[in-house]
Amino acid sequence: MNIRKAVITAAGRTQHTLPLQTLVDRDGVQKSALRIILEEALSAGVEEICLVICPGDQSAYVSAAGPLSAHLHFVEQSDPLGYGHALYGARGFVGQEPFLHLVSDHLYISQQSRRCAQQLAEVAAAESCPVSAVQPTRESMLPYYGAVGGKGVPGRPLLYLIEQVLEKPTPTEAEQRLVVPGLRAGHYLCFFGMHVLTPTIMEILADHCGQTALGGSVQLSAALAELASRERCLAYDLPGRRYNMGVKFGLLNAQLALALAGHDREEVLAQLVELLAQREAER
Amino acid sequence: MNIRKAVITAAGRTQHTLPLQTLVDRDGVQKSALRIILEEALSAGVEEICLVICPGDQSAYVSAAGPLSAHLHFVEQSDPLGYGHALYGARGFVGQEPFLHLVSDHLYISQQSRRCAQQLAEVAAAESCPVSAVQPTRESMLPYYGAVGGKGVPGRPLLYLIEQVLEKPTPTEAEQRLVVPGLRAGHYLCFFGMHVLTPTIMEILADHCGQTALGGSVQLSAALAELASRERCLAYDLPGRRYNMGVKFGLLNAQLALALAGHDREEVLAQLVELLAQREAER
Repeated sequence: MNIRKAVITAAGRTQHTLPLQTLVDRDGVQKSALRIILEEALSAGVEEICLVICPGDQSAYVSAAGPLSAHLHFVEQSDPLGYGHALYGARGFVGQEPFLHLVSDHLYISQQSRRCAQQLAEVAAAESCPVSAVQPTRESMLPYYGAVGGKGVPGRPLLYLIEQVLEKPTPTEAEQRLVVPGLRAGHYLCFFGMHVLTPTIMEILADHCGQTALGGSVQLSAALAELASRERCLAYDLPGRRYNMGVKFGLLNAQLALALAGHDREEVLAQLVELLAQREAER
Repeated sequence: MNIRKAVITAAGRTQHTLPLQTLVDRDGVQKSALRIILEEALSAGVEEICLVICPGDQSAYVSAAGPLSAHLHFVEQSDPLGYGHALYGARGFVGQEPFLHLVSDHLYISQQSRRCAQQLAEVAAAESCPVSAVQPTRESMLPYYGAVGGKGVPGRPLLYLIEQVLEKPTPTEAEQRLVVPGLRAGHYLCFFGMHVLTPTIMEILADHCGQTALGGSVQLSAALAELASRERCLAYDLPGRRYNMGVKFGLLNAQLALALAGHDREEVLAQLVELLAQREAER
């Protein structure tokens, strides 16, 4: 499986300015969140990237992408019919090829020298099937994520065969349908916001988009559940962490995590201690 | 002295996207840095605000200002001839009135319930003269700020009569010309990025702009030095702190300071400890 294309969804009506925010990356370089995400995709060997955006956002994104804009194609999602519908907008770009899919409101920090997207692409290439990155996540965070159930692939400690996919399950649903043997109690395999998918997902999304009434919402999780019932789909507990910039203080946490994982760690820790001391003194 | 107008400079070519960044304010509400700065100005009783911007930025600023855009006037600085030149662009807006001036790359956190700009405006109204907010600042930070020398106003512990103004002085210059009796050793009164000024500053800036060759730079500090030689000008060691968003990790520090001074203090401290523990475990 040779992955030459990536699709990044950035059309969420409340999230579309997140990729335009300025951050300092692990190497201490100031850049837009979008550039960090594009670098992540390119690390996987991808050559072309399709961004699914809100109408009118293209020029701001081209400017935020800087020199990386040469890799970009744009598709506008004119009606906000959900995440699955946004991804479906890239069907013409994807054609008959497998592709990497990232969301634009997460940042990824690898625990290895190879970036998260590169690790995921390598697993998908070796297994020749769709692979979704996942992260064992506390039950209290289930309202924010899609989650999978399944069983471990024998002899491959970080790989799971996906049997169930549920979007933002309740704790009861998760306990009944998503318990994965071997995980810590109260933890579930939640999506990392990073997948390698085959073009079959676009056929499934076509059905789902056709069936959804105007004003409804097409979810990716439902399409992934169907994909997993048709093809072998794996979940990969990727050695890294995702930081959701779209929640309250999400940008702050993402920036702190980048800084603490990188080049400027000591400087940022020193600033942190100084700030805490100052604020304590002034209370 | 009745202060009805404010001028905010936001035309710095490397800084003009800072006010468009998203932050969570002290009350836990997500908003643009611009909105936080506009609220600061409005807290001082100002009714109209002139933003001096880079050409082409108006629509992004109107959108970032949200409902506060009703208070805004815009002036474009077409040539980047320095901070003083940017401020001079607002001369038509200012007319013959005193005005509050803020920079757009700083955030201000008061140690009192009244915001910094409100405190400054009250002092200026009581003294009926130009007043610059200052903050005792370590010698090592002199390369980032303008600084003043002078002496304390008898009976008013936080007020100083300005006798000297130097832009980014060297430690030697500062030691020779800016030592202020009563400050901690190695500390100087550096600008806070917040002033109440009289229209005389525009006359002085007109001279300086006229004398500066094309490609030169008109600094506010030189004009303030001249103003202080003509009129009584005060510096006010305001009980608050300024956070410069324009330096490396400046946004991170400003966001942390806002969070630690506000409503979400406990939540952010808990997240911080969790993040530090996580990153330590993964090193």
